[in-house]
Amino acid sequence: MIKVLVWCENIQNKTQEDVKAAYPEEMHNTIAEFLRADPNISVSTATLDSPDFGVTDEILANTDVVLWWGHVGHGQVPDEVVEKLYNAVVKKGMGIICLHSAHFSKIFKRLMGTSCGLAIPKPAFAQEKLWTLLPGHPIAAGIPNPVDIEMEEAYNEFFDIPQPDELVFNAAFANCGSFRAGAAYHRGRGKVFYFQPGHETYPIYRQKEIQDIIFNAVYWANNKTRGQ
Amino acid sequence: MIKVLVWCENIQNKTQEDVKAAYPEEMHNTIAEFLRADPNISVSTATLDSPDFGVTDEILANTDVVLWWGHVGHGQVPDEVVEKLYNAVVKKGMGIICLHSAHFSKIFKRLMGTSCGLAIPKPAFAQEKLWTLLPGHPIAAGIPNPVDIEMEEAYNEFFDIPQPDELVFNAAFANCGSFRAGAAYHRGRGKVFYFQPGHETYPIYRQKEIQDIIFNAVYWANNKTRGQ
Amino acid sequence: MIKVLVWCENIQNKTQEDVKAAYPEEMHNTIAEFLRADPNISVSTATLDSPDFGVTDEILANTDVVLWWGHVGHGQVPDEVVEKLYNAVVKKGMGIICLHSAHFSKIFKRLMGTSCGLAIPKPAFAQEKLWTLLPGHPIAAGIPNPVDIEMEEAYNEFFDIPQPDELVFNAAFANCGSFRAGAAYHRGRGKVFYFQPGHETYPIYRQKEIQDIIFNAVYWANNKTRGQ
Amino acid sequence: MIKVLVWCENIQNKTQEDVKAAYPEEMHNTIAEFLRADPNISVSTATLDSPDFGVTDEILANTDVVLWWGHVGHGQVPDEVVEKLYNAVVKKGMGIICLHSAHFSKIFKRLMGTSCGLAIPKPAFAQEKLWTLLPGHPIAAGIPNPVDIEMEEAYNEFFDIPQPDELVFNAAFANCGSFRAGAAYHRGRGKVFYFQPGHETYPIYRQKEIQDIIFNAVYWANNKTRGQ
Repeated sequence: MIKVLVWCENIQNKTQEDVKAAYPEEMHNTIAEFLRADPNISVSTATLDSPDFGVTDEILANTDVVLWWGHVGHGQVPDEVVEKLYNAVVKKGMGIICLHSAHFSKIFKRLMGTSCGLAIPKPAFAQEKLWTLLPGHPIAAGIPNPVDIEMEEAYNEFFDIPQPDELVFNAAFANCGSFRAGAAYHRGRGKVFYFQPGHETYPIYRQKEIQDIIFNAVYWANNKTRGQ
Repeated sequence: MIKVLVWCENIQNKTQEDVKAAYPEEMHNTIAEFLRADPNISVSTATLDSPDFGVTDEILANTDVVLWWGHVGHGQVPDEVVEKLYNAVVKKGMGIICLHSAHFSKIFKRLMGTSCGLAIPKPAFAQEKLWTLLPGHPIAAGIPNPVDIEMEEAYNEFFDIPQPDELVFNAAFANCGSFRAGAAYHRGRGKVFYFQPGHETYPIYRQKEIQDIIFNAVYWANNKTRGQ
Repeated sequence: MIKVLVWCENIQNKTQEDVKAAYPEEMHNTIAEFLRADPNISVSTATLDSPDFGVTDEILANTDVVLWWGHVGHGQVPDEVVEKLYNAVVKKGMGIICLHSAHFSKIFKRLMGTSCGLAIPKPAFAQEKLWTLLPGHPIAAGIPNPVDIEMEEAYNEFFDIPQPDELVFNAAFANCGSFRAGAAYHRGRGKVFYFQPGHETYPIYRQKEIQDIIFNAVYWANNKTRGQ
Repeated sequence: MIKVLVWCENIQNKTQEDVKAAYPEEMHNTIAEFLRADPNISVSTATLDSPDFGVTDEILANTDVVLWWGHVGHGQVPDEVVEKLYNAVVKKGMGIICLHSAHFSKIFKRLMGTSCGLAIPKPAFAQEKLWTLLPGHPIAAGIPNPVDIEMEEAYNEFFDIPQPDELVFNAAFANCGSFRAGAAYHRGRGKVFYFQPGHETYPIYRQKEIQDIIFNAVYWANNKTRGQ
């Protein structure tokens, strides 16, 4: 059993009509729901509104992999929470998967040691293709190459991350945008995966291939194998 | 089920008393035997004396991971056999684990693109400690850090290999020798692991920790997880 | 002084009108000419028609960096020539820069240990943007991000190369194509750079930014610094 | 001209007789002095006692490469100073070379994103050999393989750092200790080199090969070439 904590800040879901339209049940619930279809995964959820921000020592002691989605509320996550997450990954080997705008979350920047900045073109939204660079990697298992995403926020280089241990996916956007979209790292005893798709106004976490990548990443981050 | 082919050249076992003493049942049988204790692994063996050198298209179509041990007989392996192995790894995703003096096998050199040369100090034999550099890597799972090896052939840098995608183990030998002892690579659709321990005159493949590393590597090379 | 050998197969320049139009003076001369503007670089050229294919032990003993461009004539380069190049790089530390369709040259495949295959979309030609992923890398020094290329042959992933030691550039093409376009490797004592731009029917080697990247790569491959 | 700031905390030099004996002129002066022999390098020094800890925006705007040595005083360096250093490296491309016990400095940990912890055996001091893993790397240019160090503090794995972009040196110590001793990273626009030798009670920074490595690293960190 892999114990997964799905953490989404859940701010825009309360106020933006386009986000509500994309995720009427709120994004953390969407993600939790598709993960729960796998009997080997147990899922809990948390948001900025949870007691202690949903991240206590007790919770983390009972968590194998965290999925982290944040955007406008990065600054509302206290540094002590970030330190708890950091220690769980580096010292205890918890896995963490940072999704989309969590590229700029405190925990991701803490683990990378760089600014994690990126560029956004104008217009900001475009068609995307997600290309597999390591077809033998477990996160790419069973994933078509490329994955087509009808419309996404276009993230662009320069993406200020350390060179990944394994660059599993690269995204190309209409108008020749380019972005390292699936980047795998060892950090201390734990594993980190950054995965770009998932802008809040498009229901991308309902797309089968994206769900499959997240499934694969959850297993990989816990040193297990999906479908074994 | 992971289908493993244990290939050892089996030359010195016929003529050298010290090798016979270390591996009276012959090295490929020693390795095959400990692997067979795992019900998720099916094992076959081959040597230079096997029909077609034990490597045919049919055999490889039925193999997930090859363990390759060679030393004095590298030159007796025909180039066509090497090409079959290469294609199985790169194009079809077969895993391959090159053991000890297989650093200089044709197939390892073919996959690395470098000379794969190394240095051997005088005296050539020494105590070894095998250090884990990536404690979160599946090949290091459950392995003590360091692993003590009472006596081994001391391999030394410069070891002419490409930088590994993941350097899992480094060996240090008495008299300050140093060697990249556990090196993991993606090559095409397949995975390659080089593992240094296993000189023919010491029964190192009977050592529990070494067996555990090989088990882990077999699973990793087939994108599976041991003990899941 | 850096001694550079510009090697182009020079086949299509003789028979294809569109290639003659792009490179009326023949591609190796175009490249040699812009390099010669640098007083720290001495340039010689060779083609498939040169005596001994332009690659002898004596020539290589007098060469610091080779630029290699081939396409339809890869098979005409004898294996002995490839072995001479390989030894010069790996054992003696010569640099080599493989350009565009030289991704499929014998020497590049020999140094990579993989198939070096890639995909080409339909239509095959498209606008390209070349993105810098490592702004602090000497090959990226002074290069705008991105570099715009009006029209190029669109190379696509999966590009079957080992993970680069340093992935300096990534290309995105119209219609969401993606390609690792600037890949740096250590191989033995030498350095290897693969650089994607340079299809024979577009005069891309006349473009200032492309020339600057090649200049930077020549210096880097010889462990020197441009403009120091 | 490369503008180098040599920063040593300079605490133990005031109180420990063995440190005074090794570095009677104080360590930062020893390092500054040998660097000053190179007319292409201009050197300034700073310590914990310098105004503003020797690290102001004005100073950093006038610095290309920082050498950082700290040990018992890491905690005395204010977080604002660390942030200034971090921004200079990541955003402006300053180089930084962290020496010996600076593995545990705030700035190194900030740039790595890991704990940067290590192990120290008992007894803590031992003979060392420093092995070159990348003979074609500019930091290894002209360096014998191995470099013998008569006596050093033995640092041991597990050293909790991210996998280096380039692992240039590995140290082996008597009694089979192993340590990644020369680790090169890109971080944002800047470059980082960690270099292990330099315990305060042995005058290791007077050793010619160690000085040569530091010279090479200073040039590398500023994207220049020594002796060009």
